[in-house]
Amino acid sequence: MTTKTTIPTTNNAAAAAETPLGEFGRIARWFSPLAAGFPGARGLTDDAAVFGVPADMELVVTTDAMAAGVHFLPDESPADIAYKLLAVNLSDLAAKGAEPLAYSLALCLPKGTPDDWVAAFAAGLAEAQKRFGVALSGGDSVSTRGPAVLSVTAMGLVPKGGAPSRNAGPDAPGALICVTGTIGDGALGLGCALGGLNWPDDGQRGYLLDRLRRPTPRLAAGRALRGLVLAAMDISDGLLADLAHMARTSGVAAEVDVAAVPLSPAARAVLAANPERLADVLTGGDDYELLVAVAPERLSAAQAATPLAVIGRFVDGPAGRVTALDAAGAPLVFPRLGWTHD
Amino acid sequence: MTTKTTIPTTNNAAAAAETPLGEFGRIARWFSPLAAGFPGARGLTDDAAVFGVPADMELVVTTDAMAAGVHFLPDESPADIAYKLLAVNLSDLAAKGAEPLAYSLALCLPKGTPDDWVAAFAAGLAEAQKRFGVALSGGDSVSTRGPAVLSVTAMGLVPKGGAPSRNAGPDAPGALICVTGTIGDGALGLGCALGGLNWPDDGQRGYLLDRLRRPTPRLAAGRALRGLVLAAMDISDGLLADLAHMARTSGVAAEVDVAAVPLSPAARAVLAANPERLADVLTGGDDYELLVAVAPERLSAAQAATPLAVIGRFVDGPAGRVTALDAAGAPLVFPRLGWTHD
Repeated sequence: MTTKTTIPTTNNAAAAAETPLGEFGRIARWFSPLAAGFPGARGLTDDAAVFGVPADMELVVTTDAMAAGVHFLPDESPADIAYKLLAVNLSDLAAKGAEPLAYSLALCLPKGTPDDWVAAFAAGLAEAQKRFGVALSGGDSVSTRGPAVLSVTAMGLVPKGGAPSRNAGPDAPGALICVTGTIGDGALGLGCALGGLNWPDDGQRGYLLDRLRRPTPRLAAGRALRGLVLAAMDISDGLLADLAHMARTSGVAAEVDVAAVPLSPAARAVLAANPERLADVLTGGDDYELLVAVAPERLSAAQAATPLAVIGRFVDGPAGRVTALDAAGAPLVFPRLGWTHD
Repeated sequence: MTTKTTIPTTNNAAAAAETPLGEFGRIARWFSPLAAGFPGARGLTDDAAVFGVPADMELVVTTDAMAAGVHFLPDESPADIAYKLLAVNLSDLAAKGAEPLAYSLALCLPKGTPDDWVAAFAAGLAEAQKRFGVALSGGDSVSTRGPAVLSVTAMGLVPKGGAPSRNAGPDAPGALICVTGTIGDGALGLGCALGGLNWPDDGQRGYLLDRLRRPTPRLAAGRALRGLVLAAMDISDGLLADLAHMARTSGVAAEVDVAAVPLSPAARAVLAANPERLADVLTGGDDYELLVAVAPERLSAAQAATPLAVIGRFVDGPAGRVTALDAAGAPLVFPRLGWTHD
């Protein structure tokens, strides 16, 4: 489903005419089908979802919100917005090695948001649900006098004690820093969306935009790495910023060999023409690859479990200090390490 | 903690100066202490919360969101906003007979929201947490270009199979409709907050405002009623509207004896002076009492478990039709049954 519909940013007198279904009609028509695969959702006709967790499993719960005008443009495809909203939440589950179970949605839309926007949004959720194996468990739908705010709380299951934390623990110094895929595609995709970059190739531009709009949570990699990593998280704020979070929690410093950071052909093409975009690649965020710390003696086992690129190491030093080194081993300095939420 | 701080409704150039702590500083200072009682929160330094559910229990999960300018006024006390946000979510857990466990918070605030607003908001959460026995498990903090939007996903535990639904099942016809406390206080409190009502008494006005701003989830009543009710939900949209939801799901019609609906002394005083406010009482919402359907033969057991007022009954008839009857048994007509979310 495609639509050019945009979310209104203010109240509008035609609101009633544009939402003939009303809240309950929308839920019944577009959201109840998203809950069909999860009996605990009680068909979205109850106050709450109710479900058990197997005795040998733990629940993994994460919340990520997105606001129009901050995390997405109001005229972006509702299906893409929905897909990304769910995918970024599942990315946190992936980092903890969890299997997605269900998610709760808080949908706060401007009055006057047309039904076809909501229909397209639900279709994007349906697509992501099907791809990643998760169902809607419940939520809330309210109106706002401002831009849309969308929030998901995703729940997954992991074997007891199997979820790695961000803290690599006593073996942190000397641990290898690895990533599950190419870095910077999302940030360069944002450069495409906002304009201002020269592209050698429309196909590459499309690839980068797709990585921005439809990130793939690394669920299989996260599961494969259970028990093989000292620490794990997903990269959302930017490689260097997220590595700094992990290093700080682990009480160590980190070094990154920039030449070892895996890049897609599209990102290589952009950097060849626009070398100053390296900062975007390393600090722009929106990667949704996994960042893991691996003890050197477990590296081969981890790489046998899932493809991993080694990009650096934890070292003794001030907790949270991250140094990016060029091919000659000289430190590179960037204006910021990553996206800040304020 | 009290503050007169209001949430900015637009971006403002002084934002940086007003939020010297930044997102991570705020989390460490004001939100991490809220997670201290819940080890699964991992100190809010991880991507997700991780915790087990006992084998004989089920998880109950609910999400409620509130938007500035729709669900609360931007100049309301941040502590009250926080308290109510958590309380209304716990009210859904109460309806399902659940014991609160933890909650996840999506905090979407305008850029420039001062740190002291956030501090007061966290203090309101702390107060509600302590009173109701729940802890913060995680969440997300993002900025918006519009009014604040706050969302909570609350999680609780109930013995397996113990959570009543909204569907009273085959025994619905003839079931008694009961409530756990006085109705209409919150809606009349909103009348106070907005002005336009004459009050005989400042104390009563204060009582009604408190019921609006600091609702009490009926957690003990919900637990006491496990196994004794055919159906249960909390009253948030309005007594008649929520009863209509329950009746529709149960496939029956409902009758309410308006004279039997319990009223507080303050509400009685308002109605004595402003009889037209009866519609607010029955349809205004914000009650957060429990609405339950009880088989007649279980009434004495249910009333022994917790105070319950019988206000009506389910009858054969069009599913979801609700008739309010006056003391003479004549039907009363109101312009609407309750709050709509659109």
